Amino acid sequence: MKLGDIAARVGVMLDGDPDLDIVGVATLKSATVGHIAFLANGKYRRELSDCGASAVILHPAERAQFRGAALIDSHPYAAYARIAALFAPADRDLLAAPVHPSALIEPDAEVDPSAQIGAFALIARGARIAADCVVGPYCHVARGVTLGAGCVLIARVTLLDGVTLGARVRVHPGAVIGSDGFGLAPDAGRWRKVPQLGSVRIGDDCEIGANTTIDRGALDDTVLGDDVRLDNQVQIAHNVRIGAHTAMAGCSAVAGSATIGAHCLIGGGAGVLGHLTLCDHVTITAMSLVTHDIREPGEYSSGTPLDRNLNWRKNAVRFTHLDQLARTVKQLTRDTP
Amino acid sequence: MKLGDIAARVGVMLDGDPDLDIVGVATLKSATVGHIAFLANGKYRRELSDCGASAVILHPAERAQFRGAALIDSHPYAAYARIAALFAPADRDLLAAPVHPSALIEPDAEVDPSAQIGAFALIARGARIAADCVVGPYCHVARGVTLGAGCVLIARVTLLDGVTLGARVRVHPGAVIGSDGFGLAPDAGRWRKVPQLGSVRIGDDCEIGANTTIDRGALDDTVLGDDVRLDNQVQIAHNVRIGAHTAMAGCSAVAGSATIGAHCLIGGGAGVLGHLTLCDHVTITAMSLVTHDIREPGEYSSGTPLDRNLNWRKNAVRFTHLDQLARTVKQLTRDTP
Amino acid sequence: MKLGDIAARVGVMLDGDPDLDIVGVATLKSATVGHIAFLANGKYRRELSDCGASAVILHPAERAQFRGAALIDSHPYAAYARIAALFAPADRDLLAAPVHPSALIEPDAEVDPSAQIGAFALIARGARIAADCVVGPYCHVARGVTLGAGCVLIARVTLLDGVTLGARVRVHPGAVIGSDGFGLAPDAGRWRKVPQLGSVRIGDDCEIGANTTIDRGALDDTVLGDDVRLDNQVQIAHNVRIGAHTAMAGCSAVAGSATIGAHCLIGGGAGVLGHLTLCDHVTITAMSLVTHDIREPGEYSSGTPLDRNLNWRKNAVRFTHLDQLARTVKQLTRDTP
Repeated sequence: MKLGDIAARVGVMLDGDPDLDIVGVATLKSATVGHIAFLANGKYRRELSDCGASAVILHPAERAQFRGAALIDSHPYAAYARIAALFAPADRDLLAAPVHPSALIEPDAEVDPSAQIGAFALIARGARIAADCVVGPYCHVARGVTLGAGCVLIARVTLLDGVTLGARVRVHPGAVIGSDGFGLAPDAGRWRKVPQLGSVRIGDDCEIGANTTIDRGALDDTVLGDDVRLDNQVQIAHNVRIGAHTAMAGCSAVAGSATIGAHCLIGGGAGVLGHLTLCDHVTITAMSLVTHDIREPGEYSSGTPLDRNLNWRKNAVRFTHLDQLARTVKQLTRDTP
Repeated sequence: MKLGDIAARVGVMLDGDPDLDIVGVATLKSATVGHIAFLANGKYRRELSDCGASAVILHPAERAQFRGAALIDSHPYAAYARIAALFAPADRDLLAAPVHPSALIEPDAEVDPSAQIGAFALIARGARIAADCVVGPYCHVARGVTLGAGCVLIARVTLLDGVTLGARVRVHPGAVIGSDGFGLAPDAGRWRKVPQLGSVRIGDDCEIGANTTIDRGALDDTVLGDDVRLDNQVQIAHNVRIGAHTAMAGCSAVAGSATIGAHCLIGGGAGVLGHLTLCDHVTITAMSLVTHDIREPGEYSSGTPLDRNLNWRKNAVRFTHLDQLARTVKQLTRDTP
Repeated sequence: MKLGDIAARVGVMLDGDPDLDIVGVATLKSATVGHIAFLANGKYRRELSDCGASAVILHPAERAQFRGAALIDSHPYAAYARIAALFAPADRDLLAAPVHPSALIEPDAEVDPSAQIGAFALIARGARIAADCVVGPYCHVARGVTLGAGCVLIARVTLLDGVTLGARVRVHPGAVIGSDGFGLAPDAGRWRKVPQLGSVRIGDDCEIGANTTIDRGALDDTVLGDDVRLDNQVQIAHNVRIGAHTAMAGCSAVAGSATIGAHCLIGGGAGVLGHLTLCDHVTITAMSLVTHDIREPGEYSSGTPLDRNLNWRKNAVRFTHLDQLARTVKQLTRDTP
């Protein structure tokens, strides 16, 4: 591809030779002739001067830092994402053939002729697969599941009865959507299972990470809005609702019936207790536990800082007497003239 | 179904017209004519007055709050669980046929004629599947595995060599039972794998969540008692023993050789270190870490409260000097007359 | 097997009758005649006197504690690991046949004739499986994946395009290696996916636990050194690098572009934030969060001790005013003569 064509296709301003040949994208450090690199994090600015890329994607304010051709955009990371997509394998190439002979498609499933179905996939009766979907190897699309147009199930995805995906949803291997919620009623010293009769509805443009689990609702559905992004090993319990454009990092979890607003960022390993409500634009830092409703946008945290174990031990044991310490201080303030 | 028949079948007292037609269960908020709703959490009491359900399951003390027919029980949530079960699809309907033609059953596996085996399932030699089991699609039942009567493996369950399930155990997709424990011996600056020669024994009426992992024992077995309930993404290490009726919420984990008592509740994301013992009736709150034996029933916690990040930072940095602060206060109490 | 032969094969000193017949290994508590037991943890020393084993593996200093035959080694746990391996089923016995008829091997995949391929396995074009590999049931070896000699994929392992394993790597069920990293660029209020164009390279002698996930790099690869050991449900984000001989316990996680040194120990449920660097020989205790670079070897922790919930609540609420408490104490020290 020519550099000028790339700039035109993604709508980025080019300052440099449009006839340069481009073969791919690379980091500032590893890029050589034929590569486009990018600077999106100031930490790597010093790598610009030695960078061997044919062109670099830059914020206008950084233009002077790089001698060679520049693709200039006020959001260089988003511009990079659009350019890198030109060099990524197309989803249609994920599978070798439209429908692998080993796939099982039950007679009354509806599979659009443009959809692709991989080896050992199982599409159960009543399932509907819209146009341009790619259902990879070992994917299990159970009864009555609906996939909107352009969904991609990479491989080994489990979508249980009645789950609905919007358009262009991407699901990674090992994800399980529509498993039973953890509903248990205590009954004479034993547990009685509470049937989980709802399902899961996922909006357009969502991405669900590897080995992530999303439980079906107990009665109503578990719901993810449009453009929700879940990393690997995220756990979403029954009847949770997640607003549009919210992203949850790896190993985070939301307990039953909690509602997360739109445009939230949930850090890795963070947890949200059940039945809580978080408003829009809330950020939870990694491994924090949300134990009460959040009604104001902003960043929230819990936990203690990492420390050398010997120091930590001394301080941690004091934590177990912190209330007494505070009472002592209060008394001292009274006693001190 | 008639309301009166439902009340009779589950043994709940009916105050209302037994001839009402019932088509399903619903929440107080979404129920309309033909639905049974329930009130189990006082938080939702105000929804009773507007509820359009044909009948509501209630504690006797709440009877006056609802005009319509009432199913009255001192444990309304357990009563609801029994009633909802009448409207849940039967396990026998999970699969379309007794044995799917794509399933592989090795010749010397014993599968009861009443059992059902799904597409792409693999039942290895020496495995024994008792009456009324449902083994869903993609389930891998390895050599010498034993399933008691009425077990349900929803789909894509992995039971490795020699694992034993009691009666009526339910396992959700992606669960792996019998994987190797994490046994490593340091040996001249490298790790040497310690063979994991035990297996896993699971009691009756247990439920194992999606993508949960339970490791086999190093020499003796890993053991779950009857009616143990594990949510999604729980991790049980080798040689752990969990007492009957204990429930563990999503993403909780127990390290090697720990023993958890009966009737314990382990909160979401909580952890128990290795070789510890917890007595019966212990509750661990979400994301707490158990670092010592627990010998008395009750509720235990660790961690700090969620706070706005700016406040949290100021407090958290003080935590790293808490021991010094306590020493200073001690000195002040000496110095203050 | 004769005791003397065992001692000779694993290079451990025998003090006792070399002609004793040995049928297996067992714990000190459960061992009977024909078993070899071991003492590696002083906690179990008192079990030596009653132990019914034919022989016990012991540190030289413990020799006097056991009447019977002893296998003496200064690293008894490593010696036990070598001896137990003699009684473990051989990897070659994991599968019934060299290549199961239900396995799909695409024409231009290279599978060494000595390799074994299980039921419902899928080996895609361009994949290369070296000598003596065992690829268990349901394993998905995608395009261009390379397995070094002697790798064992137990079952249901997903290796996505271009992933490379060294020699003798062992991967447990449900593990996903090579899933997309969580790369998202904010773009006009929405998320834009950043293509993940790198892959994953894993060194020799690594072990990857059940349901563990390792993401492919965004541009460069995600890299695990030799002899890295990951327990179950570990999450490794894109572009992480982990040094040789590092072990990570269950449910631990490393965020994007972090670099972990060699010989590190990451405790269960611990987390490492993105873009950090940990030097060699660092130990992180369970459920701690690493929020800054670590430049000195040693043990590091965060969190607070477990306490009865009532005590914990009182102390925890004080944490939210800890900065104010510290300021008050500082003022008091000024005011106190």
